Amino acid sequence: MTQSILFNEISQQPEILARFLDAESANVERIVKQIHRADVSYITIAARGSSDNAATYAKYVFASFNRLPVALATPSLYSIYHTPPRLTNSLVIAISQSGESPDILAVVEEGKRQNVPTLAVTNFADSPLARAADMVILQHAGEEKTIAATKTFTTQLLAMALLSTALANDEERRRDLDKIPDAVTRTLALDANVQQIAERWREMTSCVVIGRGYNYTTAFEIALKLKELAYVIAEPFSSADFMHGPFAIIEHGFPIILIAPTGMVNDDLIAVGKKLRDKGADVVVVSDMREALEIGNSALTLPVSLAEWLSPFTAVIPGQLLAHHVTAHKGYDPDHPRGLTKVTRTV
Amino acid sequence: MTQSILFNEISQQPEILARFLDAESANVERIVKQIHRADVSYITIAARGSSDNAATYAKYVFASFNRLPVALATPSLYSIYHTPPRLTNSLVIAISQSGESPDILAVVEEGKRQNVPTLAVTNFADSPLARAADMVILQHAGEEKTIAATKTFTTQLLAMALLSTALANDEERRRDLDKIPDAVTRTLALDANVQQIAERWREMTSCVVIGRGYNYTTAFEIALKLKELAYVIAEPFSSADFMHGPFAIIEHGFPIILIAPTGMVNDDLIAVGKKLRDKGADVVVVSDMREALEIGNSALTLPVSLAEWLSPFTAVIPGQLLAHHVTAHKGYDPDHPRGLTKVTRTV
Repeated sequence: MTQSILFNEISQQPEILARFLDAESANVERIVKQIHRADVSYITIAARGSSDNAATYAKYVFASFNRLPVALATPSLYSIYHTPPRLTNSLVIAISQSGESPDILAVVEEGKRQNVPTLAVTNFADSPLARAADMVILQHAGEEKTIAATKTFTTQLLAMALLSTALANDEERRRDLDKIPDAVTRTLALDANVQQIAERWREMTSCVVIGRGYNYTTAFEIALKLKELAYVIAEPFSSADFMHGPFAIIEHGFPIILIAPTGMVNDDLIAVGKKLRDKGADVVVVSDMREALEIGNSALTLPVSLAEWLSPFTAVIPGQLLAHHVTAHKGYDPDHPRGLTKVTRTV
Repeated sequence: MTQSILFNEISQQPEILARFLDAESANVERIVKQIHRADVSYITIAARGSSDNAATYAKYVFASFNRLPVALATPSLYSIYHTPPRLTNSLVIAISQSGESPDILAVVEEGKRQNVPTLAVTNFADSPLARAADMVILQHAGEEKTIAATKTFTTQLLAMALLSTALANDEERRRDLDKIPDAVTRTLALDANVQQIAERWREMTSCVVIGRGYNYTTAFEIALKLKELAYVIAEPFSSADFMHGPFAIIEHGFPIILIAPTGMVNDDLIAVGKKLRDKGADVVVVSDMREALEIGNSALTLPVSLAEWLSPFTAVIPGQLLAHHVTAHKGYDPDHPRGLTKVTRTV
């Protein structure tokens, strides 16, 4: 297999995640002081695409560890309808790799107008978004040369995790973040196993990706990679939502990716996994836990067991690799997905 | 075509929506007085399946007309992780036809523990959810004998719309609600056109449904009906999110449903619709607006132009009918989707 730029960017993640922690930890401490001076009872996050998946992760992290509810902004209320809600008591966070999408910018500008604190998470210090926000966390991911976000997604996740530990002044959880780069390195070694599954699924046209809790984001991100790279109709679900209707689509041999690292949601995921197997679905399980792995027709065994809240950092890796390899098997170009551009300027 | 129970329930909607307004308007006025006594700066909504789509509608309505942001609850934080966020300044709304799902109930119970106002929207006065909440809006939809929600979905939408008009004490918007039953009746007359499209799409296995703003919910609900009834891998998108990656999946002949009634988001939807047509997608447009309808390979012309915020009530109707007819063409039973039960008890 030729070495694509995308494959290189996937492989760079350990180094870039370590660099992010070095570069931004002190800045995030300063940001937290600024946030503590404001009267924040919930967080509003504006984001699209992979960044929106990082926002979904933030929903779980800020609620669990900071007791802060997160409302995902609906940017059209700001950019098209011009009927933004009152943001009293809210912190506004905008997540955008490029920092250029007008609709995301509109949410930050409204936050400024309403005098609530605004924070941008972006890869570009001189982007419109970074210039507009009160506070900025830079991703330090380097230029992402391919269209599909990989290293910029995991640095956004890490920005959310770091902010949460700093807001809670939780040194133990902060130390756990330092384990991520090595865990990602070891997870990248799954590549040979992932290639086998990609070979088996080389004809795939649709699939379902299931996660829950912290790994709801992982399901969304893997599904997005499969869509934008391999043109697979990949739909993400929480295991609970999946049972409220969509379960009906499952036929014999239907490809399912079940994201089930050790955690509080395991029982639920295992129960759903068994129902899927009983219906004859072709289930690939991503987990570090034998009971979950045994459900699958194939298993992708995560070599490191991180704390559940950090498991998306490793669980997403086999999904990134799978999307890459299925794309290559199908004869598509992983570096240049059709119809997409790197910076998507939606209003 | 045999008259299924589902088709009857779809057809009952005008009558049931009118009955809901008669039965609940006074109650909702009382509820609003109770809410006004609390210090509410945002709303938390817990829901799954079609009810979650009603919650998405509520996000737009409460932000636009009541300036209240909506945070969709992540029930697993309450029911599995037991790390619920602080709900200070929030009103908690739970939407559940059956009122029986434990995870949705857990959110209301936590709201009670934290002493914030809680409101249940349900079809069953004696359900655990109705018994737990401080306030109840009953749907009065009658028993829904089939598994796929249709009349219970539109009564949930109407509950959100009615609550919004009452909270804002907006008599003009309240009067507009009275136009809905007749508009739905007239929209049901699209059935013959929908049957033609269902005939053309009888082999469909996947599709994308696109809406934005108020009709983001319509896209989600139509996609859910196609999944649970016709076993179509139907994925819903906002037109903006769709351009951030998923656009890549589109191939020649790919079925797209574009929900574009007259409204502020039309320019955006028309631009996306043209790009889809240029890629050779098979676009069906649901709209009352010539410029939008002309984009499609097929047009479903909404016979009534409601105010944009009420357009989901009519725009969803052709989607319900389409899901029904494609299901029948495929030889499946619209009244008994495989693998589903009416009450889904997820934790």
